[in-house]
Amino acid sequence: MTGLSAPRLDILELHDSLASPVSESMNFLNEVAHHYPDAISFAAGRPYEGFFDLDLIHRYLATYEEHLTDRLNGDQIAVRRTMLQYGRTKGIIHEIVAEHLRVDEGIVVDPESVVVTVGCQEALYLTLRALRRDDKDALLAVVPSYVGAHGAAQLADLPVLPVQDSPEGIDLADLVEVVRSAKAAGLRPRACYLVPDFANPSGASLGLETRRELLRLAEEHDFLVIEDNPYGLLGDGSGPPTMKALDEHHRVVYLGSFAKTGVPGARVGYVVADQPVSGRDGRAETLADQLARIKSMLTVNTSPIAQAVIGGKLLENGYSLKAANKREIQVYLDNLHHVQRGLAARFSDTPGVSWNTPVGGFFCLLTVPFAAGDDLLETSARRHRVLWTPVHHFYAETEPRRQLRLSFSHLSPEEIDEGLDRLAEFVRAQL
Amino acid sequence: MTGLSAPRLDILELHDSLASPVSESMNFLNEVAHHYPDAISFAAGRPYEGFFDLDLIHRYLATYEEHLTDRLNGDQIAVRRTMLQYGRTKGIIHEIVAEHLRVDEGIVVDPESVVVTVGCQEALYLTLRALRRDDKDALLAVVPSYVGAHGAAQLADLPVLPVQDSPEGIDLADLVEVVRSAKAAGLRPRACYLVPDFANPSGASLGLETRRELLRLAEEHDFLVIEDNPYGLLGDGSGPPTMKALDEHHRVVYLGSFAKTGVPGARVGYVVADQPVSGRDGRAETLADQLARIKSMLTVNTSPIAQAVIGGKLLENGYSLKAANKREIQVYLDNLHHVQRGLAARFSDTPGVSWNTPVGGFFCLLTVPFAAGDDLLETSARRHRVLWTPVHHFYAETEPRRQLRLSFSHLSPEEIDEGLDRLAEFVRAQL
Repeated sequence: MTGLSAPRLDILELHDSLASPVSESMNFLNEVAHHYPDAISFAAGRPYEGFFDLDLIHRYLATYEEHLTDRLNGDQIAVRRTMLQYGRTKGIIHEIVAEHLRVDEGIVVDPESVVVTVGCQEALYLTLRALRRDDKDALLAVVPSYVGAHGAAQLADLPVLPVQDSPEGIDLADLVEVVRSAKAAGLRPRACYLVPDFANPSGASLGLETRRELLRLAEEHDFLVIEDNPYGLLGDGSGPPTMKALDEHHRVVYLGSFAKTGVPGARVGYVVADQPVSGRDGRAETLADQLARIKSMLTVNTSPIAQAVIGGKLLENGYSLKAANKREIQVYLDNLHHVQRGLAARFSDTPGVSWNTPVGGFFCLLTVPFAAGDDLLETSARRHRVLWTPVHHFYAETEPRRQLRLSFSHLSPEEIDEGLDRLAEFVRAQL
Repeated sequence: MTGLSAPRLDILELHDSLASPVSESMNFLNEVAHHYPDAISFAAGRPYEGFFDLDLIHRYLATYEEHLTDRLNGDQIAVRRTMLQYGRTKGIIHEIVAEHLRVDEGIVVDPESVVVTVGCQEALYLTLRALRRDDKDALLAVVPSYVGAHGAAQLADLPVLPVQDSPEGIDLADLVEVVRSAKAAGLRPRACYLVPDFANPSGASLGLETRRELLRLAEEHDFLVIEDNPYGLLGDGSGPPTMKALDEHHRVVYLGSFAKTGVPGARVGYVVADQPVSGRDGRAETLADQLARIKSMLTVNTSPIAQAVIGGKLLENGYSLKAANKREIQVYLDNLHHVQRGLAARFSDTPGVSWNTPVGGFFCLLTVPFAAGDDLLETSARRHRVLWTPVHHFYAETEPRRQLRLSFSHLSPEEIDEGLDRLAEFVRAQL
C-alpha cells in the first residue's frame, strides 16, 4: 500500500451548508455548553427530564404490541413483522397520530396524508426538499427563527427570505412586501415557515385574526404555510386553534413533534401534507405521497420500534398528549412564571433591560442595552457560569444583537433563581 | 374561509428526483407486491423473519441500560438522559460499533470517526450531500446498483457516472475510462460507490487484487471509495477483507448497516469517515464531523432507544454479529444453495437461460433470452403468482433487460421449490 496518500478534502469543496454561519452556530453553541458543564444553562431547549422513566418504554412497547395484536386478529407473525421488519414508508402509527390530532388539536385529516418521520426535523427537510425545484425557489420564514429551519433550508439549497416578526408573531405587511419584491426579482416564494404557537426563540404566538389573514395572503399570493408546532400543547390551553385546524383548502403543511410531548429519545415526528399533486398520470396523489418517495431515499422508514413507543404512549392516554403531559405542562408554566417574576425582581429598575411575556412554551427573550454576541456568551460562561443563546444565531447572521434567548424548560426553580442571579451579575458587568 | 382555493402543485414543480425513473421504480415494485400478496416473492430483499422475537427487544434494551449504568458509575439520571433525551449527533453506540468492526471485520477506527445513522440509507445520503459542492461534482457507481444509491444521488443532485460491472464485481478499465472522460468534460468524480461483498443485485464480490487495484486507482485519480457493506457477514467467511480493512490512507468511506444482521426495525446504520478535512480555522476535523453537522439539520440524532437495541445485541454477543447471526447465516447459505440447485434442475437444458453463482448474500441474477420488463413482471405475478425484480431498475433506466434479480433471503425451502416451479412455468411461457 505504499505510495497511497490521504485524500485532500477542504471545507470549501463540500456542500455549501457546511461553510455557513448556521453550521458554525450549532457547533459553537454545543461547544460552549460542553466546555462549561457546571454552568446553569438557559441555552438548551431540552424537555424537562424529571419524569423520565425507562420502565415506561417497555410498557409503551407492550401496549402497542397488544393493540397491534388486536388489529391483526392475533396473527403473531404479522405483529413481529410490523414491529421488527422493514416497513411502510409513511409509518405504522399514522392512524393513531391522526386520532391524536383530532383529540388534542381539533385537526381532522386523512391518515394517508400523514408521514411519520425521524423527528420533526426530517419532516421539515422532506418538505423543503420537495418544494425546491430550481434556483428560483425560495422560502419565506419569520425571523428570528429556529436555527434548524435555517439549516434545513440551506441543506435543501433553498434561500430564506426573512419576514419580520412582531409582537403578534409575524409582520404581515412586511410579508406582503417581501413576497412582492421576491416575485419582482424572478423568485418563487414556495412557502412561509413559522411556529405560530410559542415560537422559538421569541415565545410569541399569533392571534386568531393574524392566522386567518395569513391564510388569506397565502391564497392570494399562492404559497403554502409550513406550520411547525412543537410547543402548542405547552400552554394553558387558552390560545386560538392551530392554522391547520383553520385550513379548509389544504394551504397548510403541518409539522408535528413528539420530542417535547412524547419521548425525545424516540426521535419521532410527522408531517401532514394533504395537498393534491397533479402530473402522475392522473393518479390521485398528495404531497404526503411525494414526501414518502423522498423519505424512501433518505431514511427508508422511521424505526417501527420507536414508533411503537410513541404509539403506546398515545394509546395509554386516550390519544391525548395534553392528558399525558399534565405534570410537564405544569412544570413549564410554573417555570415560565418563575422566570418572569425573577426577571422583574432583578431588572425592573435597570434602564435598557426588558423582556417579553409569552404565555407558554420553552422560551422568552431578554433585551439588553449592549450587543450580546458569542464573545460575551463565552465571558458569561467563564466568569458568571451562566449560559444563554445569542439571538443573532436565529437570524443566520454573525453580527451580534441586543437580545438573549432564555430557555427554562429543563430547570428547577432553584436553578432558575441561581441562574438569574448569575445572569443579573453578568448583565450589570456590561453596563 | 370562503374564497380560498387549494394550492396548485404539479410534480414538475417539485424536486427533480420525484419525476425520475428511480422514484417510479420504487413505487411500481411496491405496488406489484401489494397487489399480489399471495405470490411467492423473489423480489423483496428482506432479512429472514423466522427468528424474530419481540422479547429480545426488551432484553437488548435492558442489557444496554446495564452497560450504560456501569459506564456512568451508577448515575441513573445520566442513564435516563442518555437513553431518553436529545443526544450526541454522532450517536451513543459509536464505541460499541468500532469494537464490532474490529472483532468482525478487522477494521480499526477511531470511534470519533463513526456517525450512527438512521439506517445505512441516511449514511449514504449524508456522504453524497457532503460531497456535492456544485454541478461539476459527480458520483461513480458500479451498475447495476442498489436502487437506493441511485435515489440518494438524485436527491443530492449528484449525477451518477455508471461504471461497468464484471464477474469480478467491477470493470477497472472501464472505471479509468469513465474517470478520464468525466474529467475531460469538466466534471469532478468525487467518489466511487460500490458493494464489494455480495452486491445488490448481482451477488458478485471483488477479489483481493481487485480491491487493492481499486484503492490504487482511487489514489491516482483522487476520488474516494464509498464501500457499502450490508451483506459482508452473510457468507461462509472465506472472502477477502473489506476495502476499509485494506485502507491505510483514509481513501474509503465505509457504510454499515444493522438492518440485515441487527434488527431491521431499529433502523440503525453508520458511516465511518476518517478523512481529514481542512479549512476550519486549523481545527482538526474529519469528514465524520461534517456529516454530523449535516445530520444535525436532517434528523438531529439517531433515536438512542433504537441505538440501545442494537448496542444491547452487540454487547450480548461479544460485539460479533457473525456470532449473533449463526442461525441466520446458515439459512441464507442453505437458501442460496437451494436456489442454485433448483435453477440447475429446472433450467440446465434451456437454451439462453443461465445464472451466476454468488457465494453469499441475498441475491443472484438469472439471465433469460427475452427482455424481462415491468409488463412481464406483472404477467408473472398475475398468471404465475411469482415475483422477481426486473434488472433495468438497478440501472436507473426504463428499457427492460434480459435479466431478473432473484432474492431468496426470507423464503423457506418449500417456498423456494414452489416459487422456482412457477418461475420455470413463467420463463417457458415466454420462449
